Amino acid sequence: MDEQNIPDIVVSRLPRYLQVLQRMYHENQQTTSSQELARKLGLSAAQIRKDLSQFGEFGKQGTGYSIRFLIDQLQSILKVNHGWEMALVGAGDLGHAIARYQGFSNRGFCIRVIFDNDPEKIGKDINGITVDDISHLEERIKDLGIKIAMLTVPSPAAQAVAERLVQAGIQAILNYAPVPLSLPPQVYIQNIDPIIHLQHMTFYLE
Amino acid sequence: MDEQNIPDIVVSRLPRYLQVLQRMYHENQQTTSSQELARKLGLSAAQIRKDLSQFGEFGKQGTGYSIRFLIDQLQSILKVNHGWEMALVGAGDLGHAIARYQGFSNRGFCIRVIFDNDPEKIGKDINGITVDDISHLEERIKDLGIKIAMLTVPSPAAQAVAERLVQAGIQAILNYAPVPLSLPPQVYIQNIDPIIHLQHMTFYLE
Repeated sequence: MDEQNIPDIVVSRLPRYLQVLQRMYHENQQTTSSQELARKLGLSAAQIRKDLSQFGEFGKQGTGYSIRFLIDQLQSILKVNHGWEMALVGAGDLGHAIARYQGFSNRGFCIRVIFDNDPEKIGKDINGITVDDISHLEERIKDLGIKIAMLTVPSPAAQAVAERLVQAGIQAILNYAPVPLSLPPQVYIQNIDPIIHLQHMTFYLE
Repeated sequence: MDEQNIPDIVVSRLPRYLQVLQRMYHENQQTTSSQELARKLGLSAAQIRKDLSQFGEFGKQGTGYSIRFLIDQLQSILKVNHGWEMALVGAGDLGHAIARYQGFSNRGFCIRVIFDNDPEKIGKDINGITVDDISHLEERIKDLGIKIAMLTVPSPAAQAVAERLVQAGIQAILNYAPVPLSLPPQVYIQNIDPIIHLQHMTFYLE
């Protein structure tokens, strides 16, 4: 597989395939079809066959896909066949909720360090992790070799903190602040902004 | 404009255009170009011109787009030129953080009711709203005519609660539970799952 040749729009769908397949697997299902995946994902079967064909021959004509095999392949492609450690910056309400959310470690993403600049929050324990002073951000992230950060600081602080994260070696940022980050092109950014999703839906409402 | 003819992928980009334009406007910028928007959004200028042309002629060749005019048009298209009331179901850590987040009301989305089934949470005040017993869900949503709900209940409860929301007249659900909802096709669903975004980025990491 040559990563460079996979369109990002295809990459963006792979985690959703993996999620649906893992659910089937936990319900003891052994095989699936592009038709079934299409129904569950709201995509066309042709689209799914085309997406998966980018990575090799996963299914056999007529017998469908082995769910276990497809999960293994997708985990390997997405590099989630091993765990990832993450830094969380911002221990406010949202940061707190994220730090306590079990869904990360369940799915291979482990929050290793939490930073804040608020003396009231520094030193507090959240889900077994002591909130560290943001002045230690560069040192600790470098020492631990962490590559992924989640950013839950207030919007006005987001850009400056993101730049510090990149300096510290962070390569991927999940940004919860509702501002776009301007960072070097080699840094991957995903934004989570509920308003964007809400406005997408209101388009269709009466 | 005929809504039916706008591809959903185009609709999905409009809130991002609006977000960037609103930021420019607050920075006292008057006009912009498809090139500038493209740079800020990581899209091609041709894509942006094509998307905006779906809704009529917004820009003049050579003089660029009026930011204020474009904001007004996009707000009208996305139906966010007026406020929306929302129901929040699930007053756990994440629901709490969402209820206290100022970014919703700032951008025209107002949480009007919060429901939970936990006697410890019912009756508590979050950001000026009293958490109501989930047994009142149908009655209150119908009475208030609320059309949008945010779902922050534990995964095993999500599908059943979503079905109750639809029965109560909810037409759009922002689902934070990491499970896909199976609902009638006339109900709009957007899912917020940070793992999907993280796995999208790990694809590109070393």
